[in-house]
Amino acid sequence: MTAPAPSEKALVPFVSVDNMMRLVHHIGLERLLFELTDVIEADFCRWEAFDKTPRIASHSRDGVIELMPTSDGEIYSFKYVNGHPKNLALGFQTVTAFGLLAEVSTGYPVLLTEMTLLTALRTAATSALAARHLAPKGSHTMALIGNGAQAEFQALAMKAVLGLETVRLFDIDQRATEKVLRNLAGSGLDVIACNSAETAIEGAQIITTCTADKQYATILTDNMIGSGVHINAIGGDCPGKTELHRDILLRADTFVEYPPQTRVEGEIQQMDPNYPVTELWQVIAGLADGRREAGQITLFDSVGFAIEDFSALRYVRSRVRETGLFQEIDLIADPDDPRDLFGMLQRSNTLKDCA
Amino acid sequence: MTAPAPSEKALVPFVSVDNMMRLVHHIGLERLLFELTDVIEADFCRWEAFDKTPRIASHSRDGVIELMPTSDGEIYSFKYVNGHPKNLALGFQTVTAFGLLAEVSTGYPVLLTEMTLLTALRTAATSALAARHLAPKGSHTMALIGNGAQAEFQALAMKAVLGLETVRLFDIDQRATEKVLRNLAGSGLDVIACNSAETAIEGAQIITTCTADKQYATILTDNMIGSGVHINAIGGDCPGKTELHRDILLRADTFVEYPPQTRVEGEIQQMDPNYPVTELWQVIAGLADGRREAGQITLFDSVGFAIEDFSALRYVRSRVRETGLFQEIDLIADPDDPRDLFGMLQRSNTLKDCA
Repeated sequence: MTAPAPSEKALVPFVSVDNMMRLVHHIGLERLLFELTDVIEADFCRWEAFDKTPRIASHSRDGVIELMPTSDGEIYSFKYVNGHPKNLALGFQTVTAFGLLAEVSTGYPVLLTEMTLLTALRTAATSALAARHLAPKGSHTMALIGNGAQAEFQALAMKAVLGLETVRLFDIDQRATEKVLRNLAGSGLDVIACNSAETAIEGAQIITTCTADKQYATILTDNMIGSGVHINAIGGDCPGKTELHRDILLRADTFVEYPPQTRVEGEIQQMDPNYPVTELWQVIAGLADGRREAGQITLFDSVGFAIEDFSALRYVRSRVRETGLFQEIDLIADPDDPRDLFGMLQRSNTLKDCA
Repeated sequence: MTAPAPSEKALVPFVSVDNMMRLVHHIGLERLLFELTDVIEADFCRWEAFDKTPRIASHSRDGVIELMPTSDGEIYSFKYVNGHPKNLALGFQTVTAFGLLAEVSTGYPVLLTEMTLLTALRTAATSALAARHLAPKGSHTMALIGNGAQAEFQALAMKAVLGLETVRLFDIDQRATEKVLRNLAGSGLDVIACNSAETAIEGAQIITTCTADKQYATILTDNMIGSGVHINAIGGDCPGKTELHRDILLRADTFVEYPPQTRVEGEIQQMDPNYPVTELWQVIAGLADGRREAGQITLFDSVGFAIEDFSALRYVRSRVRETGLFQEIDLIADPDDPRDLFGMLQRSNTLKDCA
């Protein structure tokens, strides 16, 4: 006699890194980025249905560990994510993540998944969503300043969603740029390595900054920014970490995810608390203007918000169901009589003795 | 050719419900409760080393989902836990939980484990820890009012830590009491079923209340409480949920885990914000008095705090290492070059094509 298998209620689908990679290849990366952009857009359209709270951060000398919960009243999600700039030198990822979906009505988890890859995917999809609403019509060229772990995902999301044709790369570390050149060969994008940020932005309608130093930096200065461009600022995403000179912010119209979080973590942490911003969801829902005129500089001051993870998690949940790309793990104790947790424990021992 | 196995950094030890039950049987339940009480005591002694924050709750009509993070600067922990009183009628657990430990220096997870069972264990161990410092010397009899999922763990922790001999049971649902009678047969405790709370507390030095209704209730009234007893109040643990009449609180000396959380969630939510409380850790560290005299009524107004979960998680981590009672799951993406997340994804596809 062996112990009975855990009941269905006890089992939670788990998507490993390996299965997440299989899922991406099964769907196709560009198609996935396009679909994910639409799922995030749909959730931004019903922004007011969500519980919103700034992430809960635990800061230390070397980095930060954050929990990012949200809920739409039916489904609850949270993401665990760290940010440790010094990890790179130790051979670890700067950012790793995993996440969970649960039923609000019972509190039972329904999906556990890796989110290191998924965070890169949803960040790129959110950038593409913002660019869909803010970048000049017909944008075909993007400067990509900072060629780290996010870079290729940013480029391919812009290709999938906007039809981007050309990417102009710059990084202070030439090896990072060479990595992106190598990885995007055969992607259908024209990829050009540049030897300065100034050169990279020549002819670009979209400028994406995604550098990783945890310090105030000035990747872009005001004289570099011509009229009419869209700036997609990804790297300034925690207190003390910015990429743009404040003079750019004085000329730009700035769009953000969730102001209480962005004012602490984003580029606008440099500005007065009354610095005007527009919430991106209001543009998407048709409640506020996006790009009004050709000469306008638009800035998406992106820091990443829990609703984007919620969207990504529910997308993965729907897609792994049909593909079977998950394992079931025995995460939840489920005694026959819910009040008899002790009896379940006791009986498991008896059964093992008989085995 | 097959895809390479994930690197060691990518793998996180996972303790399933099944392995947690095996671990309990391997160590022995009473020994585990005794050791866990000591581990929690050691962490309460260094209380000031921890980041403390009230839990982050997402309330809904049917219940609550909470995240409970803490850190001692070296190790970070959090627990996911729900509380859904109506789950019982649906055949689900009222409380389920899982938790995680991570290295603060890198942000990398080092343990993922079920915590439904572990929460019952740590709650019982914390009750025993409080009773070790607050209950009358030589306490041998405990009234146990509310005979749900927590009950047997409470009784056995008091036996393991204090040498309790007799448990007197009462529940408004007689089947719950019968379940405890059955489960504690052969435990070495004298177990007596009583037909009222009044009868249950006769001759008891310790009175434990652990009922589950999410509403203001009065399980104990002032006239029931004689001098010199220790009250271990477990069930009043969220806004709107209490078990004791406020007149008892006016006579008792009240001890709590973390005042900012207990004033919202505990029995003392009924009292003035200035109602005096003593932090249990200060008693344990020798900075405040516990029981001063025989006639004193002591009350441990327990709501559960993140540091208790931290202690339980680090105990499990040390014990599963030596027993091998865990699986490794592929939770963290770990590319050879940490900046080359995209390359890892791309190569996984090539490798699969060749397989």
